[in-house]
Amino acid sequence: MKIGIFYRTDYVVPAKEVYEKLKSHFDILFFKDSSENFPEVVDDKTFEPQVVISVGGDGTVLRVLKKVKCPVIGVKAGRLGFFSGYLLSEIDKLIEDLKNWNFVEDKRWILRVESQVGVFFAINDAVLQKDVSQKIVDFTVEMTDGTFYYHADGLVVSTPTGSSAYALALGGPIILPNVEAFEITPMAPQFLATRSLVIPSTEKIKITVSDMVSLVVDGDVVGKVKEVYVRKCSKVITLLRPKSYDFSTSIKEKIGYGKRLLKNGSE
Amino acid sequence: MKIGIFYRTDYVVPAKEVYEKLKSHFDILFFKDSSENFPEVVDDKTFEPQVVISVGGDGTVLRVLKKVKCPVIGVKAGRLGFFSGYLLSEIDKLIEDLKNWNFVEDKRWILRVESQVGVFFAINDAVLQKDVSQKIVDFTVEMTDGTFYYHADGLVVSTPTGSSAYALALGGPIILPNVEAFEITPMAPQFLATRSLVIPSTEKIKITVSDMVSLVVDGDVVGKVKEVYVRKCSKVITLLRPKSYDFSTSIKEKIGYGKRLLKNGSE
Repeated sequence: MKIGIFYRTDYVVPAKEVYEKLKSHFDILFFKDSSENFPEVVDDKTFEPQVVISVGGDGTVLRVLKKVKCPVIGVKAGRLGFFSGYLLSEIDKLIEDLKNWNFVEDKRWILRVESQVGVFFAINDAVLQKDVSQKIVDFTVEMTDGTFYYHADGLVVSTPTGSSAYALALGGPIILPNVEAFEITPMAPQFLATRSLVIPSTEKIKITVSDMVSLVVDGDVVGKVKEVYVRKCSKVITLLRPKSYDFSTSIKEKIGYGKRLLKNGSE
Repeated sequence: MKIGIFYRTDYVVPAKEVYEKLKSHFDILFFKDSSENFPEVVDDKTFEPQVVISVGGDGTVLRVLKKVKCPVIGVKAGRLGFFSGYLLSEIDKLIEDLKNWNFVEDKRWILRVESQVGVFFAINDAVLQKDVSQKIVDFTVEMTDGTFYYHADGLVVSTPTGSSAYALALGGPIILPNVEAFEITPMAPQFLATRSLVIPSTEKIKITVSDMVSLVVDGDVVGKVKEVYVRKCSKVITLLRPKSYDFSTSIKEKIGYGKRLLKNGSE
């Protein structure tokens, strides 16, 4: 099996250990810092990895997912992440699972965000946000169902995947991964309009802002914009997880939402 | 055109005026209190109305929608409702729109709720709620994505249509009508689990309660239960609205959400 490894800079030491362990079992095509590009090889199809391993946090997995076409496995220190189904201490299990391809293939749809500063793909969310020094701005959101207006500091457009990220912190609902809808959640809106708006994934929305604001895609500031078009992207990303670690488990473990609370006080 | 009329008891006087106005233009099949059943006529297909008019509030429209198979038009005093696109003062416009069939046919999917006390259909929501004298109860919600637990006073399962009703009052998002998802919103849950969970409409969920609780479907208490199964129903209801009155307009008018606020202070 052909495998690639991307790691977050500060994970280079444990990542090297992962690399050493994996290379006695598999063909490791590359071992790179996640800030680097996917290695370019011309006319050599056999170079394509079948799976790429991300050693770092959920942010590293997000970055890696955008570089590659194959499925990605997240390996993390400390606690499991939404995108990271294996701990650094579980590399032997990972090797076994790779040998038997014993994974849940978790496919997620993403959003396509078109703007004056380029086209971007959001796995979690695209945020339009004013700077600290800027006055509150007006957002106009146009779609088939009508036009909605928000007078707010910002607007978060998120996928079901991103519903447990920034949108949740702003008061949004938890949207199960396979729901065909995305949501808009205003940041500090005037006149109590704090609720999220859940929109069918078939919609193409246009957001116009009264002033230039920052566009932040999956945590990266990509430029200043006054207008963006958002719709579901035809591309799908694939995460590999151990069969024991499903979405509801990660929601319960990471957020504590929907967790069982036994009468005797233990969890 | 064959038309039926249902009215709320206290609307009998204005409803009679509607009846008088309509009968000079159309064939009025019946004029009944909304607490009565749909008139039963055996072996006379021609009795079927093409449209039924509900004179009352949104609650009357909900009740009427469950009695009939044809599209329903809501006529209301005072302000327009989510389900009521015409005011009592707009009967002439209604007659014109009926003659030209100048409507938006607003089709909404509904939920099927199966329980020990019967099978019910929810256009807005099904609520499982403890009595005032009862202690807080445990809810177990089982679905394909896993099992979620809530320690709460109640649980509201609502359609996109119902997302602007009780679930909204409990902190839920606004779900656009054509989203293929329903939501669970806990009532007074312990440990901050106040967020709604948005679930794909393809799911069949099972809710188990630690004690007998009331089951309330679209506002009607239907009995005491310990277990319910909820899924999307194959039946669709159809509301007729004037073309000027769409969903985003009703959300903006009724709730004030997403409304334009002009700089000069007028709305």
